[in-house]
Amino acid sequence: MNPLVSDAFVDFLLSDVLDVEGLCALPAFSAHGKETIGPWLAACRRVAREVLFPSYRAMDEQPPRFEHGRVTVHPKMHAAWKELVELGVIVAGRPPEVGGQQLPLTVATLSTAYLMAANLSAYGYAGLTTGAAHLIEAFGSADLKAMWLEKLYSGQWTGTMALTEPQAGSSLADVTTRARPTDAGHFLISGAKIFISAGDHDLTENLVHLVLARIDGAPPGTKGISLFAVPRLRPAAKGLQANDVQVTGVIHKIGWRGLPSLALAFGEEGDCRGWLVGTPNQGLRCMFQMMNEARIMVGVNAAATASVAYHEALAYARERKQGRPLGVTDPTTPPVPLVQHPDVRRMLLRQKAIVEGSLALLGVTARYSDLSEHATDEETRRRSKLLLDLLTPVAKTFPAERGFEANALALQVHGGYGYSSEYLPEAWLRDQKLNSIHEGTTTIQGLDLLGRKVVAGGGAALLALQAEVQADAARARAAGLDVAPLARALETLLTLTATLGARGAGGDLEGMLGHSADFMDLTSTVVLGWIWTKLAATVAHRRDDFAQGLLAAWRYWSVTELPRVPALAALCESAERSYLDLRDEWL
Amino acid sequence: MNPLVSDAFVDFLLSDVLDVEGLCALPAFSAHGKETIGPWLAACRRVAREVLFPSYRAMDEQPPRFEHGRVTVHPKMHAAWKELVELGVIVAGRPPEVGGQQLPLTVATLSTAYLMAANLSAYGYAGLTTGAAHLIEAFGSADLKAMWLEKLYSGQWTGTMALTEPQAGSSLADVTTRARPTDAGHFLISGAKIFISAGDHDLTENLVHLVLARIDGAPPGTKGISLFAVPRLRPAAKGLQANDVQVTGVIHKIGWRGLPSLALAFGEEGDCRGWLVGTPNQGLRCMFQMMNEARIMVGVNAAATASVAYHEALAYARERKQGRPLGVTDPTTPPVPLVQHPDVRRMLLRQKAIVEGSLALLGVTARYSDLSEHATDEETRRRSKLLLDLLTPVAKTFPAERGFEANALALQVHGGYGYSSEYLPEAWLRDQKLNSIHEGTTTIQGLDLLGRKVVAGGGAALLALQAEVQADAARARAAGLDVAPLARALETLLTLTATLGARGAGGDLEGMLGHSADFMDLTSTVVLGWIWTKLAATVAHRRDDFAQGLLAAWRYWSVTELPRVPALAALCESAERSYLDLRDEWL
Repeated sequence: MNPLVSDAFVDFLLSDVLDVEGLCALPAFSAHGKETIGPWLAACRRVAREVLFPSYRAMDEQPPRFEHGRVTVHPKMHAAWKELVELGVIVAGRPPEVGGQQLPLTVATLSTAYLMAANLSAYGYAGLTTGAAHLIEAFGSADLKAMWLEKLYSGQWTGTMALTEPQAGSSLADVTTRARPTDAGHFLISGAKIFISAGDHDLTENLVHLVLARIDGAPPGTKGISLFAVPRLRPAAKGLQANDVQVTGVIHKIGWRGLPSLALAFGEEGDCRGWLVGTPNQGLRCMFQMMNEARIMVGVNAAATASVAYHEALAYARERKQGRPLGVTDPTTPPVPLVQHPDVRRMLLRQKAIVEGSLALLGVTARYSDLSEHATDEETRRRSKLLLDLLTPVAKTFPAERGFEANALALQVHGGYGYSSEYLPEAWLRDQKLNSIHEGTTTIQGLDLLGRKVVAGGGAALLALQAEVQADAARARAAGLDVAPLARALETLLTLTATLGARGAGGDLEGMLGHSADFMDLTSTVVLGWIWTKLAATVAHRRDDFAQGLLAAWRYWSVTELPRVPALAALCESAERSYLDLRDEWL
Repeated sequence: MNPLVSDAFVDFLLSDVLDVEGLCALPAFSAHGKETIGPWLAACRRVAREVLFPSYRAMDEQPPRFEHGRVTVHPKMHAAWKELVELGVIVAGRPPEVGGQQLPLTVATLSTAYLMAANLSAYGYAGLTTGAAHLIEAFGSADLKAMWLEKLYSGQWTGTMALTEPQAGSSLADVTTRARPTDAGHFLISGAKIFISAGDHDLTENLVHLVLARIDGAPPGTKGISLFAVPRLRPAAKGLQANDVQVTGVIHKIGWRGLPSLALAFGEEGDCRGWLVGTPNQGLRCMFQMMNEARIMVGVNAAATASVAYHEALAYARERKQGRPLGVTDPTTPPVPLVQHPDVRRMLLRQKAIVEGSLALLGVTARYSDLSEHATDEETRRRSKLLLDLLTPVAKTFPAERGFEANALALQVHGGYGYSSEYLPEAWLRDQKLNSIHEGTTTIQGLDLLGRKVVAGGGAALLALQAEVQADAARARAAGLDVAPLARALETLLTLTATLGARGAGGDLEGMLGHSADFMDLTSTVVLGWIWTKLAATVAHRRDDFAQGLLAAWRYWSVTELPRVPALAALCESAERSYLDLRDEWL
């Protein structure tokens, strides 16, 4: 049975690396400790392994049906939803005032990884509901909260995020959905949205869309966008009535196939009511306050999707016997398990380095999120926020991009069988590909990292990162590990950033940002070098198998990936112009 | 309309780079010249664009059905088969004695790219038939040829390659299918094969499997394997009768979905007749004489699959307007086409560098194949064979591995739409993944390259390559291009190979081969650096758009990829042991 995510690794992260005990000493998390977190993890693991995972393939094979204007989900999803609601995962991270248990994000991040690894579509309905409810909780009026918050957090209804429009794509400045004020307090919404996940279904009696729209007369661009709560059915004298939200099409996604992605039309009959969330024209700002968390969750999804495939490949490589060791030519000797072939071990260790490195990075990033909000001293909050903002694009992108590579390796380890849908790796490969696209494409993350995060406040975030890296490197050095490659790579990153930042400050945007993709690759490589050093330093004194595995992955990363940094830095620094100068007609 | 492959590029390759005119001056190809090759290319392009491509998606969506023991292909495949047969593609590369026109492989390679880019499954039936017939032509007895050759080459029947067995996978030494001699001249075959492409269908009245099996009493391992022709229906007094070959299952492949992949049982009722092809126990040797060509064809498939996706992404990036240029913040300015964003241009130029670099490498490799067989002087034949053998694993693996990356980039350029099956890039991404698996996995190619090809004959092949690279580098230098990065990379490759070869000669196989995957990456990077230099040198004097595009791709490869070589070499040279020492229980 596929463990989805390694329990030993998650337990190690929480107790030995992320100091969850320390987090639980904070007033905000004082209700928590081993006695609550242990059972929570156990419950998530049970639901993931016993409910979600067994229904994964069936949901992948039979996506939701769209008939007569409504979407019907897979029958197994109803049982899965019931369990997710009972687990309390929708509201777990929220405070007791709204029915939650204020679980640290650090814990939620890793426990959610099991649910996503088991069945990302099934968890998707819950995750989207949390996101929508959280927006209402943070920015909604008291009336709005009273109307909908409990319905959402209790799983009685679900929520969606309705940002993207067909003509605008990632460019939210070009959102054109209209909101006309009325005297009754609500707005009349009209416009088309696309790629709305869980935008309709028969799982619950109602759903609420969190919609970006433009109030009549609002300024153009992102400064004129407001946020609205738009239910599918609206409150009426007697229960609920239709709110003029129509499903106009289904997008046939290649993965996440248990979760419908829809085109929606709001107000085609002029009778779609929306309620403002937050202040007018501040919609994007509201949305972006949730963005770090949303992007971390994409990273978790990516790490989880790579994790379940890694464990599948590992089990296959241990079981499947094929070929003989290097140098053995006698065909009468028995074939050996695939895991004994060096290149198969390379593929497995590479997957482990990507999967567990990603999970650890996400845990570290989530911890900064917890501290940025709940640390008792302002300096820790400020510093943690800097690190959270800096690491978020990396924690979203690295697991998505390298996770895709890891998923391809898991398929490759399965050989010809991996190329068939009789085996599961192909499905996870399809699932994974979305993570480099949604919640900001890899291109957008690269521009965010280099154009904003590393240069903001005079590079304050990078200096904070430097201190973190140096502290872990010192621990590792003290434990006898060679951290010279990491130290060099970090130095390179700092120097390069100063150079590029100065270029941008001087007005040369192309010279600064032209190689943002390479800069993201470089930064991710260094950050993962740090993360692996942090893990290695923690187990360097141990001789057990678990520790040896982590030390092997650390060594692999240090010698295989960190040496890529100088060439990447030279590329960014040179502002090499092959594609910058490229003209369309040359292609 | 997607051009599938760039006509301008193919024409340029054939006339300016591969010197097809020179090839046609050889006696073997004397029937050819511009007046035959032009019409041939035009015919292939027409069938690809007008017949195969329009049926691609339908065949992907409705794979062949398996019912009552027989396989029924998509209705559109019947029309496609007729056109492929009329085109004469099955026999085009064979000599007039067997009905062919002895087209140089150099030309066939590039013309086939159109057919594969259009609909790889449809072409697959033809390509497999050529392969099977070619084996009979090369090794079959006069009787055997008389029985089957014309049927196959004329497309009246089709052929398959039946090598893989469920328990053995890539390890052909472990083939267990039995062949019992009879007094009647034929053998009785019994055993199970898997992943047999086009192993059954209703396209033609009969098919012939080329089967690897072990004659009773044969030695174990690869030295005891023989090759047999095993028809589905065998000649009988009155026409054809069943030959006890059963379809036992269909593998649900994730790509190439128009071409069925089957599990077959031979001789379940003890009545399956096979006819020996070649001498007993020489079956693998026969098969491997076709291996260079088969692997080149996988490379062509990979390049073609990346090509069609690249052209789709390019058209989309030109048409789709989204976002604004770097630094433009005024939301009232109109959105620009995606192709204007630097990072989109990076993704496009990277695809171009991979696609066109692969096509050129395949053309160059095919040319060595032509010369190795048909050059008039023995020295050219010998030297060309060395280069052919050396380049084949690279020409198979680079397009497969980097082509997959290119296909992922084509999807990424399409954003959220790319993640849906309303658009085509996702289908090509699925198709592409097979190419790193079949005809020898990437692992096997790496071991072949480092363990055999670069060290054979005291490194003779690598010395021949060095001379080729230096000649093109000299041309490029004379044209004013900077070839220092290529010269350094080549030097590194030569030194490294000497070091690793010496290690292997000393008995340290792990020290030599432990990083065969990195060595393949390194060698491919250098080889592509050479190929791009060859192309750049050829157009360096020109100022037109086409030439500028090639020069941009050359520059991109020189500054982005060649600088990766030193770190890869250090890795191979260090024989870094993170995964070599890794123990299963550490994972």
